[in-house]
Amino acid sequence: MRIGELSSWTGVSVATIKFYLREGLLPGGTPSGSNQADYSDVHVRRLRLIRILTQIGGLSLRRVAEVLRSLNDASAAYRALGPEVEEDPGEDFARALDDTNRFVDEDLGWRVHEDAPGRRALARALAALRQTDGEVNVSVLRPYARAADWLATEEAPSPHERAGADRAERTIARTVVYESALMALRRLAHEHRAATDR
Amino acid sequence: MRIGELSSWTGVSVATIKFYLREGLLPGGTPSGSNQADYSDVHVRRLRLIRILTQIGGLSLRRVAEVLRSLNDASAAYRALGPEVEEDPGEDFARALDDTNRFVDEDLGWRVHEDAPGRRALARALAALRQTDGEVNVSVLRPYARAADWLATEEAPSPHERAGADRAERTIARTVVYESALMALRRLAHEHRAATDR
Repeated sequence: MRIGELSSWTGVSVATIKFYLREGLLPGGTPSGSNQADYSDVHVRRLRLIRILTQIGGLSLRRVAEVLRSLNDASAAYRALGPEVEEDPGEDFARALDDTNRFVDEDLGWRVHEDAPGRRALARALAALRQTDGEVNVSVLRPYARAADWLATEEAPSPHERAGADRAERTIARTVVYESALMALRRLAHEHRAATDR
Repeated sequence: MRIGELSSWTGVSVATIKFYLREGLLPGGTPSGSNQADYSDVHVRRLRLIRILTQIGGLSLRRVAEVLRSLNDASAAYRALGPEVEEDPGEDFARALDDTNRFVDEDLGWRVHEDAPGRRALARALAALRQTDGEVNVSVLRPYARAADWLATEEAPSPHERAGADRAERTIARTVVYESALMALRRLAHEHRAATDR
């Protein structure tokens, strides 16, 4: 398809598509005649993934580019996905990070990169919890780990989905989209409980 | 305690505390002598909540002010908490919103405000999912709703926690903190699965 058709098919403006092409977020089309190029499903899928990462995942284009560059290395792609935790995450962070690392590596036995940003995000949450609720054992996170692991299994690509970039794209897209759905449902569940518990 | 002690106790700078006092995010202290005021646990707790909402929840100060103003009305506080969904959330949003509203109100039977922002966030997620994975029934969200509801119960204040502003503060803080913990664990679980499924 032409760039105009790609635009109307995906709802992304031609100017934005051209910008993504220049920035290398989108692979070039197949040249077809003078100054024209042919675009395919690859481009449609890639544009949808970019939209999911920016609009639903809230990622900057710099981070999107990192995720896209890492699609053939899942661990790197998840590292690029964040979440970002600022440099000075507050008091008692170092101790919380020790506790959460032990929890992830030993208690859960999960194989994740030592620089996985989720580790820092988890430690920041535990430190904040300890400030609000007093001394909290890291094991309070166990039900959350169980829920996270269970849902990750539900989201895993089915065995007959073909491998390759397409599959990695879907996995990342699902992670971000289901995450936002889960967050939305959590907010609604809390509001519902607050309304009925009175 | 004096403003300087409040600052070192919470790690929030005196300048920031004064800014929050001016903006009404923090109630004034009890006047004690000329040009001085006494601050208490109320202020410590409030400063921690503000930090959780901004640093972990990513809320703007305008949204923080809204949340704080709504602490005695849980439904309003959750509305203020977001998440914000932009005005034009993409194709097929209206149909997804109908589907998710029916899901929340009828299937789940949750009592939530018709303007609860979680409804729009959920619809945006469903619409994105349908673009990635083809026609997806809203019931695919059921395990997420179950997990969200179960975790909301875990986070509910225990019956012997005293009522009032303090309790509402803790509930909101926990919602935000556990949410970030759950997100972090999801990312880690996905990375773990990607590493072990190969």
